[in-house]
Amino acid sequence: MRTLKLTIQYDGTAYVGWQRQAEGTSIQTLLEDALAPIEGGRVTVHGAGRTDAGVHALAQGASVTLTSALPAAAIARALNAVLPADVRIAGVEEVPAAFHARFSATGKTYEYRIVNAPFISPFLVRYAWHIPQPLDVEAMRAAGAQLVGRHDFAAYQGTGSVVQSTERTVEVLEWRPGAGADVPLAIRITGDGFLRHMVRNIVGALVEVGAGRWGAERPLEALRSGSRAHGARTAPAHGLFLVGVRYGPV
Amino acid sequence: MRTLKLTIQYDGTAYVGWQRQAEGTSIQTLLEDALAPIEGGRVTVHGAGRTDAGVHALAQGASVTLTSALPAAAIARALNAVLPADVRIAGVEEVPAAFHARFSATGKTYEYRIVNAPFISPFLVRYAWHIPQPLDVEAMRAAGAQLVGRHDFAAYQGTGSVVQSTERTVEVLEWRPGAGADVPLAIRITGDGFLRHMVRNIVGALVEVGAGRWGAERPLEALRSGSRAHGARTAPAHGLFLVGVRYGPV
Repeated sequence: MRTLKLTIQYDGTAYVGWQRQAEGTSIQTLLEDALAPIEGGRVTVHGAGRTDAGVHALAQGASVTLTSALPAAAIARALNAVLPADVRIAGVEEVPAAFHARFSATGKTYEYRIVNAPFISPFLVRYAWHIPQPLDVEAMRAAGAQLVGRHDFAAYQGTGSVVQSTERTVEVLEWRPGAGADVPLAIRITGDGFLRHMVRNIVGALVEVGAGRWGAERPLEALRSGSRAHGARTAPAHGLFLVGVRYGPV
Repeated sequence: MRTLKLTIQYDGTAYVGWQRQAEGTSIQTLLEDALAPIEGGRVTVHGAGRTDAGVHALAQGASVTLTSALPAAAIARALNAVLPADVRIAGVEEVPAAFHARFSATGKTYEYRIVNAPFISPFLVRYAWHIPQPLDVEAMRAAGAQLVGRHDFAAYQGTGSVVQSTERTVEVLEWRPGAGADVPLAIRITGDGFLRHMVRNIVGALVEVGAGRWGAERPLEALRSGSRAHGARTAPAHGLFLVGVRYGPV
């Protein structure tokens, strides 16, 4: 038996998300189905995190244990030969048996893209949230900076979630300016872990500030309330990219 | 009566090209159908050039004569409200009555995108030609430089075309390097006009050189032969973007 780490890119538009679901096609399903003939039997692929339906990935991490002796590079080629074009294997590496894509992850980076212009480029419409009303990005930055650090993010968790702890550390919140219809404003968030919908709920709150409907203090007040009831709407899935997963030495 | 210049972006994936066809949806059809209720009757939209099925545009030029007095900005908004998301009006301007999108154009710029890597990003698969075999870009540059200038490009014209003259001037041929699966190699060509399939046939010939199947002199030899029979295959439509149309003072 050997353990492999997969790095996967996907356009999430057509999928129900990372995780296998009763209905619809998931990325996990595609990978498990593509690996089965290589292994000669069913396999389980573990993802670093469960991206929601419509969310994209530039470098999702996954792990799988195989008996197949096929070299890693050949597995990458074989998978890319059968996977649909909107899901690509960017890399396959041999890793120690203790490696697990989810439990070995020490952090993740997400990027949320917004086109803040009267219209959105046809090439970005599936990959960014279009907000025609002008946003005050400086106010959004100021509000976002208050969320950096270790906090209880319960107020930014999707309703119905059950997790042991809702404390997470937002390590970095970076901004890349947008320009017109063709260059999205990008909000990049790195943290040690994320609750369900956390990035999209943070972005939703910051957009309220940018649009002038919320004062710059209110996202922090919502955080302190500890209740999702004080939150803004969840930003749409199609603007969100999982940029990468951080793994410590294994 | 007034004349308007439209600037249009489109993802050509779903369309039969710029020009109205008996079957399938064209960009021209979409625009004419969207303008008809504004005008209260049929209108004819003239494009700067006929992009083929699957070709994209960052800034196609078009002109239309209307009796409607609706302000230009309101026309842009009205069109974007009814057009599909993969076709966007980037601008509407009042122009002198003599302006005609095709006859007033003094040049055009196209860009052809190639991903030269073992796999192509899921976000580029509709917008670049994927060539896994390594290309010698320096050889392609050298071969391309020989085509710059005023020449008879008959050998690079799509078969079955009938035009008065096949002389055209390639003014600039620029290269932007690619990087892996995510950043395409971009070949940008500016000229005073282009024959049907000319850019895609030039790219097809340069790829033959890059792949080592043709010597660096052969694209020029093909040009001099004057015959399409000496050409390479036509590069696929989905890698081609009409970047912009040049208009002199009107």
